[in-house]
Amino acid sequence: MNLHVVVLAAGQGTRMRSKLPKVLHPVAGKPMLGHVIDCARTLSPTKIHVVIGHGAELVRERLDATDLNWVLQTEQLGTGHAVAQALPAIDGADQILVLYGDVPLLRAETLQQLSKQAGSQALGMLTVNMADPTGYGRILRDGLGQVQAIVEQKDATAEQLLICEGNTGIMALPGSQAARWLNSLSNQNAQGEYYLTDVVAMAVAEQIPVEVAQPEDEPEVLGANNRVQLAVLEAEYRRRQAERLMTEGVTLADPSRIDVRGEVTVGRDISIDINVVLEGSVVIEDDVIIEANCVLRNCRIGAGSYIKAFSHIEDAVLAADCDVGPYARLRPGTNLQRGAKIGNFVETKKANIGEGSKVNHLSYIGDAEVGPGVNIGAGTITCNYDGVNKHLTTIGEGAFIGTNTALVAPVTVGARATTAAGSTITLDVPADSLGVSRARQRNIEGWKRPTKQ
Amino acid sequence: MNLHVVVLAAGQGTRMRSKLPKVLHPVAGKPMLGHVIDCARTLSPTKIHVVIGHGAELVRERLDATDLNWVLQTEQLGTGHAVAQALPAIDGADQILVLYGDVPLLRAETLQQLSKQAGSQALGMLTVNMADPTGYGRILRDGLGQVQAIVEQKDATAEQLLICEGNTGIMALPGSQAARWLNSLSNQNAQGEYYLTDVVAMAVAEQIPVEVAQPEDEPEVLGANNRVQLAVLEAEYRRRQAERLMTEGVTLADPSRIDVRGEVTVGRDISIDINVVLEGSVVIEDDVIIEANCVLRNCRIGAGSYIKAFSHIEDAVLAADCDVGPYARLRPGTNLQRGAKIGNFVETKKANIGEGSKVNHLSYIGDAEVGPGVNIGAGTITCNYDGVNKHLTTIGEGAFIGTNTALVAPVTVGARATTAAGSTITLDVPADSLGVSRARQRNIEGWKRPTKQ
Amino acid sequence: MNLHVVVLAAGQGTRMRSKLPKVLHPVAGKPMLGHVIDCARTLSPTKIHVVIGHGAELVRERLDATDLNWVLQTEQLGTGHAVAQALPAIDGADQILVLYGDVPLLRAETLQQLSKQAGSQALGMLTVNMADPTGYGRILRDGLGQVQAIVEQKDATAEQLLICEGNTGIMALPGSQAARWLNSLSNQNAQGEYYLTDVVAMAVAEQIPVEVAQPEDEPEVLGANNRVQLAVLEAEYRRRQAERLMTEGVTLADPSRIDVRGEVTVGRDISIDINVVLEGSVVIEDDVIIEANCVLRNCRIGAGSYIKAFSHIEDAVLAADCDVGPYARLRPGTNLQRGAKIGNFVETKKANIGEGSKVNHLSYIGDAEVGPGVNIGAGTITCNYDGVNKHLTTIGEGAFIGTNTALVAPVTVGARATTAAGSTITLDVPADSLGVSRARQRNIEGWKRPTKQ
Repeated sequence: MNLHVVVLAAGQGTRMRSKLPKVLHPVAGKPMLGHVIDCARTLSPTKIHVVIGHGAELVRERLDATDLNWVLQTEQLGTGHAVAQALPAIDGADQILVLYGDVPLLRAETLQQLSKQAGSQALGMLTVNMADPTGYGRILRDGLGQVQAIVEQKDATAEQLLICEGNTGIMALPGSQAARWLNSLSNQNAQGEYYLTDVVAMAVAEQIPVEVAQPEDEPEVLGANNRVQLAVLEAEYRRRQAERLMTEGVTLADPSRIDVRGEVTVGRDISIDINVVLEGSVVIEDDVIIEANCVLRNCRIGAGSYIKAFSHIEDAVLAADCDVGPYARLRPGTNLQRGAKIGNFVETKKANIGEGSKVNHLSYIGDAEVGPGVNIGAGTITCNYDGVNKHLTTIGEGAFIGTNTALVAPVTVGARATTAAGSTITLDVPADSLGVSRARQRNIEGWKRPTKQ
Repeated sequence: MNLHVVVLAAGQGTRMRSKLPKVLHPVAGKPMLGHVIDCARTLSPTKIHVVIGHGAELVRERLDATDLNWVLQTEQLGTGHAVAQALPAIDGADQILVLYGDVPLLRAETLQQLSKQAGSQALGMLTVNMADPTGYGRILRDGLGQVQAIVEQKDATAEQLLICEGNTGIMALPGSQAARWLNSLSNQNAQGEYYLTDVVAMAVAEQIPVEVAQPEDEPEVLGANNRVQLAVLEAEYRRRQAERLMTEGVTLADPSRIDVRGEVTVGRDISIDINVVLEGSVVIEDDVIIEANCVLRNCRIGAGSYIKAFSHIEDAVLAADCDVGPYARLRPGTNLQRGAKIGNFVETKKANIGEGSKVNHLSYIGDAEVGPGVNIGAGTITCNYDGVNKHLTTIGEGAFIGTNTALVAPVTVGARATTAAGSTITLDVPADSLGVSRARQRNIEGWKRPTKQ
Repeated sequence: MNLHVVVLAAGQGTRMRSKLPKVLHPVAGKPMLGHVIDCARTLSPTKIHVVIGHGAELVRERLDATDLNWVLQTEQLGTGHAVAQALPAIDGADQILVLYGDVPLLRAETLQQLSKQAGSQALGMLTVNMADPTGYGRILRDGLGQVQAIVEQKDATAEQLLICEGNTGIMALPGSQAARWLNSLSNQNAQGEYYLTDVVAMAVAEQIPVEVAQPEDEPEVLGANNRVQLAVLEAEYRRRQAERLMTEGVTLADPSRIDVRGEVTVGRDISIDINVVLEGSVVIEDDVIIEANCVLRNCRIGAGSYIKAFSHIEDAVLAADCDVGPYARLRPGTNLQRGAKIGNFVETKKANIGEGSKVNHLSYIGDAEVGPGVNIGAGTITCNYDGVNKHLTTIGEGAFIGTNTALVAPVTVGARATTAAGSTITLDVPADSLGVSRARQRNIEGWKRPTKQ
């Protein structure tokens, strides 16, 4: 089927009180429009036409892709007018699906069903049974359940207002009728706009079948006109993701206190405590424990690893059985081998930490290649930056770095070598050697403490 | 209008199980009574009389101010008796507003409307339509909607119990009648108390008009008798503040996970992630991003600044485009110039950090004046305290402080000077110089590691 | 009364998608079965028989105790069959209580009431009035309120489906009838299982009295078959514990954001901010303040202590008036004397910190005995580990440890001694002396900075 999708994304969203065009406001870190486009993509349409207006350039810049056709609507004259702007770029469509850039939670399954039910000959409508349909157009059906019309809130009789089936505006237009219908729309109404929903009356009048699909739940078709509504969508997204994780085998201490904002892949028997944030592409393997208040972004956590409270992990890869935190910060380029341990108040960056090696406390390990079985003492710092260049620190297998060691890179500490506590290491330390840089200690008796000035 | 406010604040609050008098228990960090007094102040009354009893001294000490008249009620003989204690200090009032020290969420708009409707001649009552009015006095109205009486729960007929309009106890007494009415109250009832609400019957009997105002919502008039109810008020306060921020242009990841406890002023297009606490006087300018789990107290965050997760900022001022955290602790007297960067596990205190200067890791910068374009290496510590006195560290423009540098104050590092990694700097370093204090490194081959004891 | 308890714990819990047997899945950190057993113990039964099947060994290993009799059910042939497996070990019982290992929130009071009402002669049933009883067996009663039968959902008439009293399955069997009834059960039903509930019909038929008890609320009798339901139980547990703390005199900033997972004992006038996790055995004395995001595990917090945000305390004892955090990590064996202060980015372990002593910033104090009135400067590190052994650091009363001091243990700093900033202390420092190990500072003028490579 030659399927085209038109996404309406031209609105300003004044009630957002924002410089950002409405459809770029994020849900779970991704612009609402991005969610809609990704949903549309699951149908593999011939083309996705995005009708933009307010902030058109910015919207395009943020989301541009080869499968998108950007259509500029210079004046906002209604939904029918908006869809019509895309017509010149649509040729021989069997079906045109109309979506909204500010309705981001629509499920692919729902859209597929709508598309399938409508096919190329019928008009497809997505309607929804609402707890409170106030403000929505109501769906009028005849005794056989066939859709007869949509009646707007303000035109509805008292009896019609009791109807709980509301119009979402999401539609599948038969390609053969779309252009004719859109060109027949009138703006002779209170708002002076061309309404897409008027095609329903046309279909009914012409005895073209009207097919109705419905979403799994009401939040799927909610839109956001202000930040309060945006927060409602965010909460619903959170709820869905939490439920998915639990279904797949993750124990969540509190489903209302986890935020999944990206593509998170999980194994089984994972335990995630309260208030954890997962962003970007995150893979968590079997039997991982994540304690409270951790932030994980674009990382892989190997099976059996234990991430303690307050850890912050970004663009890092952890092999199995690692032990991280609390208060560990793994920055981009961190690579922990199996069983490595990063403790409290430790920062790593572009660092490869060997199997079973430990950096337990108060250290900064950046631009470093650390072998297996290494113990790095508290207060160790790799001096990787000379003000203009970054240099590498290499630490061999089984080395023991004494506490408060400054490693002035480029520098190599050999296998099984030791550095004495408090040393500043500027020269390579050979394997099996002790590197020491330390002034002799003197004790001065009867020392006079400073006095209060 | 000569307006007097009487706030009843004498109760003990036994069910709080606390040493603290009930009205001092905080909502959003401020005593409940403080909220009530602040609300009353928006009407610019001639005087606010606060009737105190249990813990009177402590209450007065915590909240004393020149516009308050403290009235001691030595025995708790009922609300009518409490208000009567304030009468001697009220002269020629047009209106007396009666509020409650444990009903802290009343909106100024509601109080203004009650006051305005009642004026100087009518009795004003604040009533509320309740989802569940059990326990509240019900408002009886006649066919014209005129208030006839208040009937208490225990005296109500089955039919009266169905009335959902409850009495809040908040009242506006006409100054001309107040003294006479209060002196006519009787304590011939089950509790043996003088009830303020009995004045309603007097007004009706005397054909003095009774005016009714209502709050915007029910939580406005909720009180707290125990800590469970206190938590309900806290949640409602949280909800209100979150909604305000969103309306003003802040995106909240989760409105149920932000705590605003003070005077928070926000610009637009601010993004605040989960679990952030804002206390005291906080100003957040446009385009600021605040990540998860930050605590901000009495601070200003300049436009475009980025506050990363787990940051703790107190009594600090940040100019535009600063970059802070994660795990940064800005203590009182921290002043970041434009584009300054404070990284992880860094503590600052009484420190002025120049434009574009960086303190990226594991440092303590206290009592310091740092110029622009300075780079302070990991593990740098200002030794500002000699055990009795604090001393200043001064670092000139463009200086480079090597890692693990101890700066023993008072000390000055000149412009564009460098300190060598691992140095303890006790003498000033001239501009464009290198300051170094370091023992020569020796490598001892064939070093014998300690053996297990 | 010779009371026996039988706990059914043989199910696999396929929908948990887990290697762990269902009854071992934790609520508030304790296996569900552990909660049930602890509840049963409050009745001091003669024996608790636990019927295990799937993962039997692991279940037994985790929860074994002398008062438990483990009964293996090799095939799962229904609840009646399961209880029957325990019969051989039950001798002369007056009453047999049947509980479920995946229904962990049952209150001891409820169980006691059921047991007491049933006594040794009646059949006792625990039923519950449900908001939505769909799927549950309904309780049929006669005009006098006597239980007549349980009708399963699938067998119920439309009228019976309106009954909201559901069967929990929790029962008290009269010892005199139990064996006979269980042996009379038939598996001639759709599932081919022996149902325990069929004994109700037997009791009615035999005119043996049926006594009904009910739980305080519905969540008490909820079970968990998947992780979504597990999260519901966790939330209910959280709610209960929060309510208990508030009732006892703790102010919670948000009852839905505190996690109590263990035995927490509290004094009065404690204030706990959002997102705090309490695990294991925790004692919090009067007037303690705990700020946001703290994790406390097995510790005692002395009266008047102040625990600031992001603190992590485990197996530690704090005397009164301590001041801890933010970002303090007290590890096992930490012992703070009265008024001690541990500041940001400080880790302690097996450390006794004397009265009023301070470790304010960026330090690691492990295996240390610190006297009273000591000030430990920023960046101080006890080098307690030589790669194989741990050694002790001793610091005398009133000593002053300069910043960036490395204390190479075993080492003693005497009373009122001082160490110079940046020193590595390898030798004991006598009392009242200054220990210094520092290279002389040189300033090299006209220093050439590195250039971009």
